[in-house]
Amino acid sequence: MFDPAPILAGNRRALARLLTHIENAAPEAEAALAALFPHTGRAHLVGVTGPPGSGKSSLVTELAKIYRGAQRTVAVVAVDPSSPFTGGALLGDRIRMRALAGDPGVFIRSMASRGSLGGLARATADVVKALDAAGFERILIETVGAGQAEVDIARAAHTTLVIEAPGLGDDVQAIKAGLLEAADILVVNKADQPNAENTVRALRASLDLAHPAARAWVTDADFAHHGASAPPPAAESGQPAEGDLWLPPLLRTVATEGRGALELVEAIEQHRAFLQRSGEGARRDRDRLTHELETRLRDALLAELVARVGNGQLARAVERVVAREIDPGRAAKELAEQYPIRNT
Amino acid sequence: MFDPAPILAGNRRALARLLTHIENAAPEAEAALAALFPHTGRAHLVGVTGPPGSGKSSLVTELAKIYRGAQRTVAVVAVDPSSPFTGGALLGDRIRMRALAGDPGVFIRSMASRGSLGGLARATADVVKALDAAGFERILIETVGAGQAEVDIARAAHTTLVIEAPGLGDDVQAIKAGLLEAADILVVNKADQPNAENTVRALRASLDLAHPAARAWVTDADFAHHGASAPPPAAESGQPAEGDLWLPPLLRTVATEGRGALELVEAIEQHRAFLQRSGEGARRDRDRLTHELETRLRDALLAELVARVGNGQLARAVERVVAREIDPGRAAKELAEQYPIRNT
Repeated sequence: MFDPAPILAGNRRALARLLTHIENAAPEAEAALAALFPHTGRAHLVGVTGPPGSGKSSLVTELAKIYRGAQRTVAVVAVDPSSPFTGGALLGDRIRMRALAGDPGVFIRSMASRGSLGGLARATADVVKALDAAGFERILIETVGAGQAEVDIARAAHTTLVIEAPGLGDDVQAIKAGLLEAADILVVNKADQPNAENTVRALRASLDLAHPAARAWVTDADFAHHGASAPPPAAESGQPAEGDLWLPPLLRTVATEGRGALELVEAIEQHRAFLQRSGEGARRDRDRLTHELETRLRDALLAELVARVGNGQLARAVERVVAREIDPGRAAKELAEQYPIRNT
Repeated sequence: MFDPAPILAGNRRALARLLTHIENAAPEAEAALAALFPHTGRAHLVGVTGPPGSGKSSLVTELAKIYRGAQRTVAVVAVDPSSPFTGGALLGDRIRMRALAGDPGVFIRSMASRGSLGGLARATADVVKALDAAGFERILIETVGAGQAEVDIARAAHTTLVIEAPGLGDDVQAIKAGLLEAADILVVNKADQPNAENTVRALRASLDLAHPAARAWVTDADFAHHGASAPPPAAESGQPAEGDLWLPPLLRTVATEGRGALELVEAIEQHRAFLQRSGEGARRDRDRLTHELETRLRDALLAELVARVGNGQLARAVERVVAREIDPGRAAKELAEQYPIRNT
């Protein structure tokens, strides 16, 4: 029987052990998560995504520092869907650890993809649940890369930050469309670079496309040119009072110098307040848990079918497909029809 | 009843109509794919992936031109998992079309993510099947982005190209690990840029890590410095004769000038020959079809369970999860146990 008491009481070694079990999909993890689940739902989850080179890691470290200064406990989960190795992740850990080392109010965990992407997304969700139950008040989930997979992981958060930076290549425009849809807060990092305003303008144009309502709200004055030496402006985030609609603010930061990070934390907290008062937070929580229930049902049903059908018959179905006698869709249908689901 | 004859006979309008049905998950697509499936398995599928800005599209266009020059029919499928919009994809089409316009031996199709990533991967697989049945001999599947999702789509090909280019940002190193695992052929595009050799060296270091055997095989001489004005060298791909092992060759290209593209086509054809003589091709085909069968089984089973359980009971399960009374894993298990799978 798993005893959740040490983790709930803040025992870091017990927590670290559980996270390893989760990552390895060890059988111990299942019972532990079931026992911890009633204690989840209190942390605010912040997804941080954006293309390679945008400076996500530096920004996450700055956010963690500010939260610690405000007496909030913080966990950081760095997810790298593109890497089957943990080497890079561990290196990132050590660099970050230097800034946040020895603080019992901070917990940092790196996760790399060992198997399927679905497996990583699930493991990340479970790691976040464990950190939530352990009492961390803000959980920053950073994903390396900018594909749909990273967006999906970031989307599982309450507040999703999309980080951009000047000069990240010609195809950046194409990436933005998908990322923008998921963004609650947009950040142009490295805002002291001379071409930063081009990035701001490009993002603004994409923002107009994705959220036509924002056009009337974000005025040109908000996007006035700021020289390389000027401090980044505060959040361009005066939310409209009526209708309780959230329009993604666009912020400028220089993470390596900590500039703009305080304003970013303020924007995150404003979004958190918006989620609570509008009911949008509860809706996102429900969507996330419904999706998780569905995914787990899919897995359970396939495992059961495989157990019932037996390897011989499954292998024969595969052979027929490989021989192009029957297409995979038809083969799946036939198997499902032969082994129907009954009520007990 | 779907008549596969027009598509098998090369009718482009019938083919385009079917691809639209597939993209929209229209009911007509299922029967059509079942009828066409026996005619698939002849095309050679080439996945082309790499980070934004690496010049994948230009390179794909060059490859298509060379295949056409060699009297091979070519289809290009450009997949953008990060974009829910088709605008970018269509623009890319038009630019490419200029170079390949009016050639009946070429078919180009762009696909953008409208719903889930899983949906896109499945639709891409089906589009490729239709093009295969329609008789296109080489199918180039280009994915925008460099996350695991893109790797998964590229992996469904017979030969996977990973394209890199100099100076794509600090995090590029992190991306490479996952991409390298999937690579059959590595390409450093924009090889005329002054810092291209740094990229070659970095890739080589990663290659050593991913394929230790390659260390002995790829000699330093292969990586000698080439000035900006020197033509890219031919494929560094003298495969070892014994054991029939494929070690990913590393090629340099300048796609905008067509340099290195012919060598790249030669490397693809060498890999194709390797797949055929080693049996690795048949193994990949089997893996891909087994995976597809499993995915379709999962979907069919969940749909059946949802139909049986009914919305009321499912909603109650979701409510209990949202109230943190039961965790999603346990809830899924209980439902699956209450509705077991039986043999008819």
